Amino acid sequence: MFRIAIIGAGNVAWHLATALEKEGHRITEVYSRSLSNAQALVKKLWNATPTHSLDFSHSRANIFLVCVRDDALQGVIEQIKLPAEVLIAHTSGTHTLEILEKANPYFAVFYPLQTFTKDKEVNLKNAPICLEASEEEVLKILVQLAESISEQVYQVSTPQRQVLHLSAVFACNFTNFLFTISKEILERNEMPFGLLQNLIQETVHKAFVLSPENAQTGPAKREDTSIIEKHLALLESYPLEWKTLYELFTQQIKTYYQNTT
Amino acid sequence: MFRIAIIGAGNVAWHLATALEKEGHRITEVYSRSLSNAQALVKKLWNATPTHSLDFSHSRANIFLVCVRDDALQGVIEQIKLPAEVLIAHTSGTHTLEILEKANPYFAVFYPLQTFTKDKEVNLKNAPICLEASEEEVLKILVQLAESISEQVYQVSTPQRQVLHLSAVFACNFTNFLFTISKEILERNEMPFGLLQNLIQETVHKAFVLSPENAQTGPAKREDTSIIEKHLALLESYPLEWKTLYELFTQQIKTYYQNTT
Repeated sequence: MFRIAIIGAGNVAWHLATALEKEGHRITEVYSRSLSNAQALVKKLWNATPTHSLDFSHSRANIFLVCVRDDALQGVIEQIKLPAEVLIAHTSGTHTLEILEKANPYFAVFYPLQTFTKDKEVNLKNAPICLEASEEEVLKILVQLAESISEQVYQVSTPQRQVLHLSAVFACNFTNFLFTISKEILERNEMPFGLLQNLIQETVHKAFVLSPENAQTGPAKREDTSIIEKHLALLESYPLEWKTLYELFTQQIKTYYQNTT
Repeated sequence: MFRIAIIGAGNVAWHLATALEKEGHRITEVYSRSLSNAQALVKKLWNATPTHSLDFSHSRANIFLVCVRDDALQGVIEQIKLPAEVLIAHTSGTHTLEILEKANPYFAVFYPLQTFTKDKEVNLKNAPICLEASEEEVLKILVQLAESISEQVYQVSTPQRQVLHLSAVFACNFTNFLFTISKEILERNEMPFGLLQNLIQETVHKAFVLSPENAQTGPAKREDTSIIEKHLALLESYPLEWKTLYELFTQQIKTYYQNTT
């Protein structure tokens, strides 16, 4: 059991604080620049103190988890006052480990790879937690902490974490935008996006069972020119960029499978 | 209960024939140009006859389901011989309804929107089946047939079906290729693609709970220029087209949310 101070009261803070408490840890303080935000999260917890001061010199916490927005991290590091012999970790996918060097002698990254939305409960058990630490002893403590809430705990270096974030942009952010395009095409033709739900779920399922490069289907993969031409003609009535995307994907899929087969 | 002849012995034929028989219909014949392919499917069925002849004039089937590849459909239609008072339907996402006109007076489309892979069982209950028919009486029969294997049965016109296919190319085929890129980026940095499984599943889940345009996250949506620049720098060591894709998506996401907010 650890005593943990949560710096931040946004989505990540909310989900981590509640998950950690559920596993028997104690949340001592919740910090937010806005006291009312801190209070809102504290209400969900057993016995934490809300605060809008970064002076933690009298805190009884032994771990400080900084869950603030990427662009607020530097400011927190410059102002925070910590007691002796504690550990500080940030939860950012992009900031380096070393950014914490000035805040405390024992520092680490505790990056949960998950998309958090307010009021939507997330099961952290299957969310990978990526750790990086200033030294072996710090890592051991963080592994213990991470394994208490997740079954997937990895040691990931700063460059790896940055690449992981890049790959998630392709696999999640861009994928979601393809869904937006797809939904608009359907709705303009009086069909609901829900028609594709089963097919999309099966696509994801196959990508992990067969591996995505073995699961590729569709006209580009088959080099079915007559269908590709029909699709390009249909796309004339949509934003020009959608046609550009269609052409770019089709060309790349063709090239990829010419080279590998 | 219908008596059904299955024309074709590929993935679609296999999955439809077994699903239909499970719901109490009787498969009378399975046709394939290669008798051994027809025999292989017949082995999975109760009492069907394998055949490589398209002369069905003495068949006892009342519904003929043509489940052949798009480019083989025309040939089947030209050669098939049917008894009187039967119904023929094709299962293609792209061919028109009218292509069947010459084969038989009663014709229809029976298009299951699902991605079928050999030896991987698929639950058809949640797969939409899109119907189009030459007349109301034919439609009624097909609705009965479709509802026996699926809970989602829709009447979809030929232009709608073609647009549906286009939208599935964006939402499934292109999405899968984004997964391939993502996997390669991870593996070049000694991380497994499995790291993203939970995040991708949550992305899909959110797209249907919140709608994709409300679920968009990431640096492009936030217009986080410093991260976008870091990502473009990282992409220098990958195929040029991946950077082009990154730039195109980023630009389009920015534009989309500038216009809608």
